Amino acid sequence: MRNPLSKKITGIAPSGIRKFFDVANEMEGVISLGVGEPDFDTPWRIREEGIFSLERGRTFYTSNAGLMELRTEICRYLERKIHVSYSPKTETMVTVGGSEAIDVALRCMLEPGEEVLIPQPSYVSYLPCTVMADGVPVIVELKNENEFKLTVEDLESKVTEKSKILIMPFPNNPTGSIMTKEDLEPIAEFVLEHDLYVISDEIYSELSYKGDHVSIASLPGMRDRTIVINGFSKGFAMTGWRLGYCCGPELILTQMIKLHQYAIMCAPTNSQYAALEGLRNCEEDVQEMRNAYNQRRRFLMHEFKRMGLDCFEPFGAFYVFPSIKKFGMTSDEFATKLLMEEKVAVVPGTAFGDCGEGFLRISYAYSLEDLKAALERLERFIQKLNVTEQ
Amino acid sequence: MRNPLSKKITGIAPSGIRKFFDVANEMEGVISLGVGEPDFDTPWRIREEGIFSLERGRTFYTSNAGLMELRTEICRYLERKIHVSYSPKTETMVTVGGSEAIDVALRCMLEPGEEVLIPQPSYVSYLPCTVMADGVPVIVELKNENEFKLTVEDLESKVTEKSKILIMPFPNNPTGSIMTKEDLEPIAEFVLEHDLYVISDEIYSELSYKGDHVSIASLPGMRDRTIVINGFSKGFAMTGWRLGYCCGPELILTQMIKLHQYAIMCAPTNSQYAALEGLRNCEEDVQEMRNAYNQRRRFLMHEFKRMGLDCFEPFGAFYVFPSIKKFGMTSDEFATKLLMEEKVAVVPGTAFGDCGEGFLRISYAYSLEDLKAALERLERFIQKLNVTEQ
Repeated sequence: MRNPLSKKITGIAPSGIRKFFDVANEMEGVISLGVGEPDFDTPWRIREEGIFSLERGRTFYTSNAGLMELRTEICRYLERKIHVSYSPKTETMVTVGGSEAIDVALRCMLEPGEEVLIPQPSYVSYLPCTVMADGVPVIVELKNENEFKLTVEDLESKVTEKSKILIMPFPNNPTGSIMTKEDLEPIAEFVLEHDLYVISDEIYSELSYKGDHVSIASLPGMRDRTIVINGFSKGFAMTGWRLGYCCGPELILTQMIKLHQYAIMCAPTNSQYAALEGLRNCEEDVQEMRNAYNQRRRFLMHEFKRMGLDCFEPFGAFYVFPSIKKFGMTSDEFATKLLMEEKVAVVPGTAFGDCGEGFLRISYAYSLEDLKAALERLERFIQKLNVTEQ
Repeated sequence: MRNPLSKKITGIAPSGIRKFFDVANEMEGVISLGVGEPDFDTPWRIREEGIFSLERGRTFYTSNAGLMELRTEICRYLERKIHVSYSPKTETMVTVGGSEAIDVALRCMLEPGEEVLIPQPSYVSYLPCTVMADGVPVIVELKNENEFKLTVEDLESKVTEKSKILIMPFPNNPTGSIMTKEDLEPIAEFVLEHDLYVISDEIYSELSYKGDHVSIASLPGMRDRTIVINGFSKGFAMTGWRLGYCCGPELILTQMIKLHQYAIMCAPTNSQYAALEGLRNCEEDVQEMRNAYNQRRRFLMHEFKRMGLDCFEPFGAFYVFPSIKKFGMTSDEFATKLLMEEKVAVVPGTAFGDCGEGFLRISYAYSLEDLKAALERLERFIQKLNVTEQ
C-alpha cells in the first residue's frame, strides 16, 4: 500500500501548545494559565441574539462572503476603529475565525518559493499555513530589548528578492507586545520600498491597554497592500462561535472569497447574527472585559516585580511573557518542572518559535483568584530554585 | 506594485451555480428550484439543544478534533448505518461542513502532480480543491445510459501511474444517482488493483430512497484506503450550522487533524452540541423529511413523464437531472430562457462539469406547492418550444 500522505503535511510539527496541555489535562489539581481564550462567557446580549436566531429558524446558508448586514456593520466598525474604509460588497469576507482568513490569504497570494516574513514569537499557524501554501517561511526574531516590537533592523537582514508577504502579528500572542503609530511608520516605509504585501492579524485589537490600537492598513499607501484580519473570538469572548473576518483590496478579496466558497461555503449563520448584535450594541461589554484584563495585567506585573521575575510591560492581548533565563533552565524544563512540582500550567515560549527560548507565555484570561493562587505556587517554585542555586 | 495573486487561484473558475443565481436574485416573481439545501428548518429538538447550549454559556473552543462525546456518537452512527468501525479518538474529526473535510483531505494526501479521478457531473468543489492542493484533476465522465453511476469502464481509460485518489460522490449531486453494493464491488476491486485511495463524499447518505445507503468503505479491504466524509447539512437540515465530519485510517486522520487545527481550530461549539442531539434523538425527524423528499421526487418523475421530459429515475439526494437535448439548446440557453420567459430558476448541468451539457439540475428541496407552480411554468415553456419546432 503506497504512502497516502503529502510530504508537506508530514513535515509540519504538531503545535507545542497542544503537546503541553495533553499532559496537564491528565493531572489533578492543576491551575492552568495556559489557554489562549477569554475566561468570560460571551456577553448575554450576543447569546440572546443567537438564541433568537435559532428560534426564528435562521438555520440556512448565508451568502458565501457572509450576511451583507454583518459585512456592512464590520466595515462601519473598522472605519470607526482603525479609520480605513472598505466596501462591504467587494472587500469584506466573513470567515471561520481569524485562522481561516490567514490560511485562505496565504493560499491565494503565494506562488511556490515566495517568501513570507514571519516575526516570532507569534501565533503558531503562520508558519504551517505558509508551508502548506507552497511559500517559504522566513523567521524574523523579535527581541526582548525592543519589547518584542518589530523593527526595520530586524527585517533588513531577512528581506530578499523573493519576499512577498510580511505577517504583522500585533497586538502579539504570546508576548503582549503592541505597535504604536510611530513604531509602524518605518515598517510601512520598508514595506513600500520592498513592494511587499501585509497580512495584519489584528485579532487582539480590542485588547489594547495604552491608547487605541493602530492598524498598519491606516498608514499612507498601505490600504491596498494589506489584508486586515480580525474577528470576534478575543475581544467579544466568542471563541466557540468560530467567527472572524478579513478586509482588503478587491483584487485579492475576490480570489479569497472564491476559495472560501469552495473550501468552506460560509461561516456559521447563527454566529453571524449574534456577531451583528455584538458590533451594534456591545461596546460596553467589551470595555468591561478590557478593564478586567487590564486590572489582572497590572496585578501580574506588580507581582512579578515583587518576586524578581523579569518581564517587560506588555500593553496588548492577555499574555505576559516573562524571562526565566536566569534560572538556567530551558523554557520546556521550567514549564515541565513547574507543572510537576507546583501544578501550574504555562506554555514554554518555544511553542511560538525558537526565539521564545528562555521565556514563558502566561495568560491572564483567568480570574484574579486563579491568578493569585497560581502566583503563590509560582513564587514558591522560584524560591526553591533560588535556594538550590546558592 | 507587483501581482499579489497566485496563478493557481486566478486560474480557477468561479462556481457556475453562483453565477446563475446572481441573475435570478435580481428578478421578481422567480420560483427557484436551484438551491442545494433543504427547505426544512432544522428540527426543533436540535435547535432547542443549540439554544440550551447558549444559555449554559458553552461558548468556548472544543478540542481541535471536536467534542469527544460527539465523535463517539458519530462513530456509533456510522457503525449502525454503514457497518464500519472507527476510533473516536484517533480516526474521527469534526469539520466545518463536509466541504472543509474534502479540502483538508486533498491537502494532506496529494504530492504535486498526483492525479485525482473526479467523476462528473458532481459537486463543484472537488476540482478547485484538487488544483489548490497541487493535484491534477482527471475528469471521469458519468453517462446517462448508466444512470450516471460510475463503472470500471469509465475509470479504465483514465487511470495512470500517477492516479492516487478516487472521489466517490454518491448519492450524487446533481444527478441524484446512487451506487448499490453490487455497483460498488467492481469499483472497490479496481481501487485495490491500482492501489488508490478513496475520498467518499456521503453527505447525502440519509437521502436514499431505494434501500439503505452503502459506503464503499464497508467493502473488503476498503476501510483503510477510504476517507468517509459526511455531515449534518443535508440529512438533518443543518446547512447554516456548518457541521460535518470525516473518518478514516489513523495514519491519514492524524495529519488531517493537524492541518485542521492550524487552519480552522475547531468546528462551531454550539453546532457540535446541537448535532449530538441530532444523532441521539432525531431519527424520526430525518425519516419524515426523507418521506417528504421521496413524495416530491415521485411527483416530479410522474410529471416529467407526462410532459415528455426525458429523465432517468434517480434514487438519492434531492435532485433530478432531466435531459433537454431534444430541444436543440445548450443547458445554459435553456436555463436562461426558462428564467427570462417563465421565471423558473434551475441550474444548467454544465455547472457540474462539461459532461453536464444537455441536462438541468432541478432540486426538489422545495414544497409541493412550489414544485407544482414551477412545473406548470416549465410545461408551458416546453409546449412553446414544441410549437416553435414544428
